[in-house]
Amino acid sequence: MTASTAVLTPVELRDAWSLLLPAERLEGFRLLERADADEFFLELSAADQAQLLESMPAAERRLWMRVLPPDDAADLIQTVEEADRRAELLALLDEVARHEVSALLVYAEDVAGGLMSTRFARLRPEMTVEEAVRYLRRQAQEQLETIYNAYVVDTGQRLVGVVSFRDLFRAPGDRALSDVMERDVISVPEDLDEEGVARIIAQHNLQAVPVVDREGRIKGIVTVDDIIDVVRNAATEDIQKVGGMEALGTPYLGTGLPAMVKKRAGWLSALFIGEMLTASAMGHFEEEIAKAVVLALFVPLIISSGGNSGGQATTLVIRAMALGEVGLKDWWRVIRREAMAGLALGALLAVIGFVRIAVWEGLFHTYGPHYLLIATTVSISLVGVVLWGTIAGSMLPFLIRRLGFDPASASAPFVATLVDVSGLIIYFTVAAVVLRGALL
Amino acid sequence: MTASTAVLTPVELRDAWSLLLPAERLEGFRLLERADADEFFLELSAADQAQLLESMPAAERRLWMRVLPPDDAADLIQTVEEADRRAELLALLDEVARHEVSALLVYAEDVAGGLMSTRFARLRPEMTVEEAVRYLRRQAQEQLETIYNAYVVDTGQRLVGVVSFRDLFRAPGDRALSDVMERDVISVPEDLDEEGVARIIAQHNLQAVPVVDREGRIKGIVTVDDIIDVVRNAATEDIQKVGGMEALGTPYLGTGLPAMVKKRAGWLSALFIGEMLTASAMGHFEEEIAKAVVLALFVPLIISSGGNSGGQATTLVIRAMALGEVGLKDWWRVIRREAMAGLALGALLAVIGFVRIAVWEGLFHTYGPHYLLIATTVSISLVGVVLWGTIAGSMLPFLIRRLGFDPASASAPFVATLVDVSGLIIYFTVAAVVLRGALL
Repeated sequence: MTASTAVLTPVELRDAWSLLLPAERLEGFRLLERADADEFFLELSAADQAQLLESMPAAERRLWMRVLPPDDAADLIQTVEEADRRAELLALLDEVARHEVSALLVYAEDVAGGLMSTRFARLRPEMTVEEAVRYLRRQAQEQLETIYNAYVVDTGQRLVGVVSFRDLFRAPGDRALSDVMERDVISVPEDLDEEGVARIIAQHNLQAVPVVDREGRIKGIVTVDDIIDVVRNAATEDIQKVGGMEALGTPYLGTGLPAMVKKRAGWLSALFIGEMLTASAMGHFEEEIAKAVVLALFVPLIISSGGNSGGQATTLVIRAMALGEVGLKDWWRVIRREAMAGLALGALLAVIGFVRIAVWEGLFHTYGPHYLLIATTVSISLVGVVLWGTIAGSMLPFLIRRLGFDPASASAPFVATLVDVSGLIIYFTVAAVVLRGALL
Repeated sequence: MTASTAVLTPVELRDAWSLLLPAERLEGFRLLERADADEFFLELSAADQAQLLESMPAAERRLWMRVLPPDDAADLIQTVEEADRRAELLALLDEVARHEVSALLVYAEDVAGGLMSTRFARLRPEMTVEEAVRYLRRQAQEQLETIYNAYVVDTGQRLVGVVSFRDLFRAPGDRALSDVMERDVISVPEDLDEEGVARIIAQHNLQAVPVVDREGRIKGIVTVDDIIDVVRNAATEDIQKVGGMEALGTPYLGTGLPAMVKKRAGWLSALFIGEMLTASAMGHFEEEIAKAVVLALFVPLIISSGGNSGGQATTLVIRAMALGEVGLKDWWRVIRREAMAGLALGALLAVIGFVRIAVWEGLFHTYGPHYLLIATTVSISLVGVVLWGTIAGSMLPFLIRRLGFDPASASAPFVATLVDVSGLIIYFTVAAVVLRGALL
């Protein structure tokens, strides 16, 4: 390490990062000590790494590109859109790394093949424990992603076993690996999506999971420390979609205002246009409202109850799907549960609503001589609207997923908008029946 | 392994699990082969483990309690509410394990101290690499949670360095550990909450992070495979809260109908009672509605736009807080951003709304001679309501967190309810000004 001329610590730079312009980021980055800079660079997101490289002169860019392990280099290249610039970045690598990275680039970023590292330890089943330890010790000099597990492959590169370092340590040196290894290896196919990989790693408490092709040949490994970012990012995307917008894909404060407005405007406009149907629906009942203005007073209460109960149902189902607890085949079980829950919740709100109207009438004489009929209309409508909201909210993620889209798009506001229009129709239809001859 | 009498595989049992009664679960569990049963038991959630133990006779319970590592045993005991039953379970352990588990039980479940394992490898700085390897090899025979990193402590148990197995492997055998170890150890305090621990592990790509007390003494380690469940569960809780209910805490299909209705009924009733204010607010404007029924038609459109934009803002801020991107001190930056975004989004909806009313009038003559004034009322109200919704939605999580509660409780439906009432007041106030002398 040379004598320090640094005026910046990694923590200071990280805190300021989202506020800095590209040129300022490079300037700050150069003020780090070399050892800190390495670590800082490796901890940046792929998009930030790409942007930093972009602002460097060519020689410096090559240096930093070569610091990256192949899987991270592939991620970085995948964030770049133009084919020319991708090729330029790839050309900065040495031949071996270029080969490895090219192999990774054929996979989508969000499947096992795109997440995996190709630098893992391979052993042969006929090796002894002693030979394996000696071999791994030599390999450890090179850049292996993990040496916590070593994977035992046959001559066709097919995965036949796994052995942990702990097991190697415990076993007598002259035993053959085939006696020591665990044959029952949990692996994932190349094209499994990232949430699926996370599920398997979490369920089995794995440190790493091997990725195999259709023929059972090992292609790489996904380690738990790679997947933790995936899990957090997937959850962030889901939460943002459930909140009724496109996933940002970047940190909140690091997202420019125009980009953020754009991500929010799409869904907001779509919901607004959908919600316009409520104006049409209410226009249909304009005559009833003119005769009994009191009906209009309960419109927000009724439609929001449908929206809220539908939002709960859709949120539960979306998350259960993301966690793999609920699949398409479970739709009938879910609809039965939600119908029961919707009836119970609707009945609860109906009672509260009835009492509220009766009490207000007693205290303030707000609703006139027909208050009991009005209370009845509101209560019956609430049961209908909440039941319908719950069923619609729970089924929409199934429908969207069946059509091949992300069920998280069945956001609470989407469900609320759907239910608002139908809620109005339920409400005014009930009113027409209950209040006929009295108010209408 | 004895000859198999098993009629059930772990996969079959896992799939059926949520549908089985406690007695049936035990029956199924006993049908697994012993090796499978071990793994199956260790992969169950702490609550499921506790329930399974509950249904066993005492001798069998002791056997399975002793299968658990201390941190998992502590988690299991923490799921049991009655003090008597906790003590009974603790008494099933041998003396050493009982001591370790008792030490863990003083921590809350959701902080670093409650997540950590006490079985980690300790080394002394003056050991040589050779001595360290030999010592670890002996330790590996016992139950160490991880041997991927070993922690170097001084005579006062203060953490002075960390050394990975990979480093030990690479280094010459006669070097002192103090020359080989990394002195700049990233650690977490005992009382750091679980999302904080996850953040540090994810940010630094760690396999494990040591937990230290105020004096810098190492108390245990949290491994990345423990934290991945935490991250997924924390995200599930946040998503469910954002969806406007209590977090379930159990898998969707595994939650009984009464429990699920209870978790949803609380927030739904609270929102309903809050939303009742809309009936009062609209009652206040009953006269205006009677004069211009057309005003009522746009009520759902206007208030839902406020709710949707507020829901987006609150969702973004809640998630950014959970990820540590935004802290209390950032409120001013957030409010400025959201005010700008709210204005832009409100203006967009205002334009769409204006065009819609003008086009409908042209096509169907829906809104009468004053349609331009109505369109103006709706557009101005939309800007106001969306701006207000965005600001209220973004600030509510700050307020709730400042009061010491979980910001995720500032759910989209909560914000929508808040904004509905104020949205009505904005709308009818704008209408009173714009339509005076014309319709009102």
